[in-house]
Amino acid sequence: MTKIKAAIVGYGNIGHYVLDALKEAPDFEIAGVVRRSTANTPAELAPYKVTTDIDELGKVDVAILCTPTREVEKYAAEYLAKGINTVDSYDIHSSIAELRRNLDAIAKANGTKAIISAGWDPGSDSIVRALMQAAAPKGITYTNFGPGMSMGHTVCVKSKPGVKNALSMTIPLGTGIHRRMVYVELEDGAKLEDVAAAVKADPYFASDETHVMAVASVDEVKDMGHGVHMVRKGVSGCTQNQRFEFNMSINNPALTAQILVGTARAAMRQAPGAYTMIEIPVIDLLYGDREELVKHLV
Amino acid sequence: MTKIKAAIVGYGNIGHYVLDALKEAPDFEIAGVVRRSTANTPAELAPYKVTTDIDELGKVDVAILCTPTREVEKYAAEYLAKGINTVDSYDIHSSIAELRRNLDAIAKANGTKAIISAGWDPGSDSIVRALMQAAAPKGITYTNFGPGMSMGHTVCVKSKPGVKNALSMTIPLGTGIHRRMVYVELEDGAKLEDVAAAVKADPYFASDETHVMAVASVDEVKDMGHGVHMVRKGVSGCTQNQRFEFNMSINNPALTAQILVGTARAAMRQAPGAYTMIEIPVIDLLYGDREELVKHLV
Repeated sequence: MTKIKAAIVGYGNIGHYVLDALKEAPDFEIAGVVRRSTANTPAELAPYKVTTDIDELGKVDVAILCTPTREVEKYAAEYLAKGINTVDSYDIHSSIAELRRNLDAIAKANGTKAIISAGWDPGSDSIVRALMQAAAPKGITYTNFGPGMSMGHTVCVKSKPGVKNALSMTIPLGTGIHRRMVYVELEDGAKLEDVAAAVKADPYFASDETHVMAVASVDEVKDMGHGVHMVRKGVSGCTQNQRFEFNMSINNPALTAQILVGTARAAMRQAPGAYTMIEIPVIDLLYGDREELVKHLV
Repeated sequence: MTKIKAAIVGYGNIGHYVLDALKEAPDFEIAGVVRRSTANTPAELAPYKVTTDIDELGKVDVAILCTPTREVEKYAAEYLAKGINTVDSYDIHSSIAELRRNLDAIAKANGTKAIISAGWDPGSDSIVRALMQAAAPKGITYTNFGPGMSMGHTVCVKSKPGVKNALSMTIPLGTGIHRRMVYVELEDGAKLEDVAAAVKADPYFASDETHVMAVASVDEVKDMGHGVHMVRKGVSGCTQNQRFEFNMSINNPALTAQILVGTARAAMRQAPGAYTMIEIPVIDLLYGDREELVKHLV
């Protein structure tokens, strides 16, 4: 079997768990890790090439983008143009369609494939939402997150001036309404009110009830567990009151990483272009013989 | 917009609900209904062509097979060879792979598409099972059905000699183990012990605890509600104890019919061949502009 050569791009929380998931995947080979700097390489990366330039890794089939979400488009555009497929967990819901359109043009022009927004929400939850809508076309789906740490929101808070460390917790209030509880460790001289204003003005937070508090140590309040509770009550044909529910309780970066590795596999199996997860067959995420998968899962 | 011309083949429970779902779908036109006989046509079919021969319906894009499961292959093979796409809710899990292989050859030879086993289990549940496995590749998924009436099992019991009417209820015992409670109205002179032996020997029932009881009236104990509770506890990368759960409580034939109509739409969008639901993108089941669907569901 020719293994899929995957590069990990960015080595924060998600990158670390992607390394774990790639090591467990029988059909992948780790081509190397791309970082902003090769200084301070953690011990677990010793067996792998670590570089600032993906070209130094030789042939790479797919780049798994574990960068901050706002850097996804830049890296994806560059790599797709170079002939490298990409997957990412881009999580700004309001601009997913635009990212898909932009990357689709680049991917098609270069014969490459991108699967975008491939974490758990957006990502695996999106598949459940689409499936619930197929099962009962009329009705309302509520996606309730947490309680849990939001990676994207936390990265966003960390990027604000005056913030040394941060944690953004998502608290479900029901019917898809959430409270954001933001805990920040301030840099010397930084004012909480300035940080709070910057956080609340960010599109990530602008539409939710947001509370920003200073804490002495973010590490002491941090837990990477998360969850979701999705519900739909709707109509199949003209039959009312069809009820569907999806729950999960998970380690957040571990699940994101596992989905990224599945979509990296799926990217190899698509025609050139950019896709969200609802646009690819679920079987393509899975390792193994296709007929055996059909026998065991259908 | 050119509407998809769909024929309903077989007009029992499922066929009736497929008619409902087609009437609600903005992109479908009902080409007509194929029945074994055109006698005793129910009043609600008055606006439609009812025939014993699909050729009399003019151009048909897709045939929605609502026949007993054991007749699916015969009809699908015939229609696929005629240039008509097919969808079905074939539900004998152990022979799905074989049906897929047989129809795939016919479909590819004739430039047509079949989506098989497209009810809720097999069907939409299969997508959830595949997705849960993608999210946590190691672990066990339990699919617990009911309590509810199993259509496939009920049709099977009705086919046994001496049975006038029947109801097969599925009772969940946990960890994917089920009891089958079978209620039969006997024909004059039929012996319960003969019917019970025939039912228990059928592959549909052979591996489950099965109780067969005679009742005076099946209609008085019949309710078409059903449900499922799927659970998976597994490993993402090397992170243990990831937990996933899917529940639904539904009118059984209404959901099967709605999924069939979604897959009839999806069949139009695939390359020639035969597919199970885990092999098609979920977005293909849905009516509407693709980019709008991505915006609202991803």
